[in-house]
Amino acid sequence: MKILNNPSKSEWTALCERPKIKQAELEKTVAKIFKNIEVNGDVALRYFAEKLDGNYDDDLRISEETIQIQAKKIDATLQEAIDRAFANIWKFHLAQKRNKTMVKVQEGLQCWTETKAIERVGLYVPGGSAPLFSSLMMLAIPAKIAGSKELVVCTPVRQAKELNPAIAYILTKIGSTEVYGLGGAQAIGAMALGTNTIKPVQLIAGPGNQYVTEAKMQAQRGGLAIDMPAGPSEVLVIADKNSKPDFLAADLLSQAEHGPDSQVVLCSNSKEIINQTIAALEKQVKELPRAEIAQKALENSRLIYFDSNEQSMEFSNAYAPEHLIIATEDAEVLAEQIQNAGSVFLGKYSCESAGDYASGTNHTLPTNGFAKAYSGVSVSTFQKTISFQKLESTALLELGPVIETLAAAEGLQAHKNAVTIRLNDLRNDN
Amino acid sequence: MKILNNPSKSEWTALCERPKIKQAELEKTVAKIFKNIEVNGDVALRYFAEKLDGNYDDDLRISEETIQIQAKKIDATLQEAIDRAFANIWKFHLAQKRNKTMVKVQEGLQCWTETKAIERVGLYVPGGSAPLFSSLMMLAIPAKIAGSKELVVCTPVRQAKELNPAIAYILTKIGSTEVYGLGGAQAIGAMALGTNTIKPVQLIAGPGNQYVTEAKMQAQRGGLAIDMPAGPSEVLVIADKNSKPDFLAADLLSQAEHGPDSQVVLCSNSKEIINQTIAALEKQVKELPRAEIAQKALENSRLIYFDSNEQSMEFSNAYAPEHLIIATEDAEVLAEQIQNAGSVFLGKYSCESAGDYASGTNHTLPTNGFAKAYSGVSVSTFQKTISFQKLESTALLELGPVIETLAAAEGLQAHKNAVTIRLNDLRNDN
Repeated sequence: MKILNNPSKSEWTALCERPKIKQAELEKTVAKIFKNIEVNGDVALRYFAEKLDGNYDDDLRISEETIQIQAKKIDATLQEAIDRAFANIWKFHLAQKRNKTMVKVQEGLQCWTETKAIERVGLYVPGGSAPLFSSLMMLAIPAKIAGSKELVVCTPVRQAKELNPAIAYILTKIGSTEVYGLGGAQAIGAMALGTNTIKPVQLIAGPGNQYVTEAKMQAQRGGLAIDMPAGPSEVLVIADKNSKPDFLAADLLSQAEHGPDSQVVLCSNSKEIINQTIAALEKQVKELPRAEIAQKALENSRLIYFDSNEQSMEFSNAYAPEHLIIATEDAEVLAEQIQNAGSVFLGKYSCESAGDYASGTNHTLPTNGFAKAYSGVSVSTFQKTISFQKLESTALLELGPVIETLAAAEGLQAHKNAVTIRLNDLRNDN
Repeated sequence: MKILNNPSKSEWTALCERPKIKQAELEKTVAKIFKNIEVNGDVALRYFAEKLDGNYDDDLRISEETIQIQAKKIDATLQEAIDRAFANIWKFHLAQKRNKTMVKVQEGLQCWTETKAIERVGLYVPGGSAPLFSSLMMLAIPAKIAGSKELVVCTPVRQAKELNPAIAYILTKIGSTEVYGLGGAQAIGAMALGTNTIKPVQLIAGPGNQYVTEAKMQAQRGGLAIDMPAGPSEVLVIADKNSKPDFLAADLLSQAEHGPDSQVVLCSNSKEIINQTIAALEKQVKELPRAEIAQKALENSRLIYFDSNEQSMEFSNAYAPEHLIIATEDAEVLAEQIQNAGSVFLGKYSCESAGDYASGTNHTLPTNGFAKAYSGVSVSTFQKTISFQKLESTALLELGPVIETLAAAEGLQAHKNAVTIRLNDLRNDN
């Protein structure tokens, strides 16, 4: 743990740096996978599924029947918890639906925008030690509300009949989907490039390891939309003397357990709270099943004393954390100064895991400082906006000369002509 | 011109293809420019400005004074036209501003989203034969409405004192900006990577040639946000027997004059209208100053007969045109079937050049089929959305066990602990 005391602004750049990943090697590996899929299609997918996931199923598509069978195996308490979380996430995202924005620009001239669903979208759900079924909710719910017609879900399995019951249960709640037992960069490549089995999608969303992330970037390079670039998960906590060190330590650890490269930052105007949090961290970390991972992440963590909450907030805006917990007494006042963050948790009972699972907000969020320019996943991730306009003849008669002048000044005569030819026609009619 | 008669769906894929650009060579050239800027900073910028733009100014930044001087040189009619267009664009985009979306998910649990401006944004305005001052309006107005604090504008000039008066005038209307006389991939590289002179931006928007486009893609690869990927400009027109061939030809040519690789498509259920439009095209194209360019674009154009307007619309959705003009009698009914398009023009008086310049909608739009997943530039291009949540103790007591169950099922014990530790604390209080 690095403990800092009122670092000057010249030190902030270094303090805001995230661990760099070795891009070049990763880029080549993923490019090879993509090339292989492009050339060999399904044969390549089979090869990777066997080699990397140990999946020897004849068909990589997981049938509706298998999903139904697996869904029934879910534990009753877990099912109930999923139902509650699902309802909250649905409710929050439903409020994000947009209607038309209609503007009468002038007499006889209406302009408006309409949002339309991206029709075919790819959702990636990581497997690993435990499949992250919560991510499936965070992707499929907004996609469904957006109106996307074709939801393609890829998730690694060893056999279709081992599909995680929680994932299967959520799939049955979402309804019609196309599910493939396929993980890693090859899943992203398949959805981006398409094969005989998997038709290409128009957008790919979802978390994953560095291979998945690199694959999404390469898919984007080819013109596909993605949810956002990604890096290791992170949290920044702002605390004051009224915060509870035990809570702070628990929040920091819930981030640290994600991976050894997770980023964990505490900013406080109380040295006592910092010291007490360190003690609480040391105590709590030992009891975690993932203690080793959390310990490694803590080694890179930063605990920063600032004279005021405002300075902590300013530092947070420079850092642009994925998760920002404001555990101070004046949390809501301080929140007004937020410029850059993915998701914000206000007050001592708003722990990050609430938003990770069940409060309703999305947990697919921009990391690595990307929160300066990117948003988390929402309904609009799965939509695009189309603009419309309708000019009546009266409006063209009035606005036409303006367009002619502007087009001529840019040297675009045919643009001007499209107006002139109409104006002549209208004037001849009168 | 390719004339087709009821092409079958198996032919659609080929008909929807855009010209491919030679990526590999372009990629290397731009990567070299980026590397040079990364290593040599301002020295590299000077080198490129001299070599590629013939700009030998000591300072690449164009001073406020120079902008004011150049702005005064604008022609009075053009100034008036810009004022009108500016007001319409402002009015339409202002309606896109979003308020908070507040949701009371359950008793004691509020979740909401807030949009915040991306603070420092780069706007690229191409030069070329005539500087495209309209693009400056289409970028700077939504950025300003979004609330972006620092607007960095790059546009190629030979000397600062030759800055186009229309661009200068628009800059004075926008107010405080940072303007650099710098064009091409080097301008994008400078804004993305930063030098001593130019601080890096968080988003780059704006049109440009294939080097600019490739540079934006490489900037995005590095984690920067961009407005959208881009290709040559394009229009698809749907016409029926009531459409005016002269208007159709003028609209097709206003797209064709952009460049030899512009894409121009006419779909109609009237063979007579198709033939009459061909005749009108041949007549009108000769009179254009950019006749040679337009002629080349027309050679690749497609005029497609479909039995019904509905089939034309279905083809349009498969093509996903940047601009879609529906010049049929039933334009508004047909528009309800639109799934994929950048900007739509309804009825015979809504010519594309109206939207290009003055009706209020944005003209920075997704090309190359990207309209399936991407939107044109809007206020939200320059914003990100942050989610917020606040749980009262009552809500955590109620929802906490749900979170614990879900976290445990994903094997994330520290996530669970962050809740447990609070629940224990609350229960002990009671």
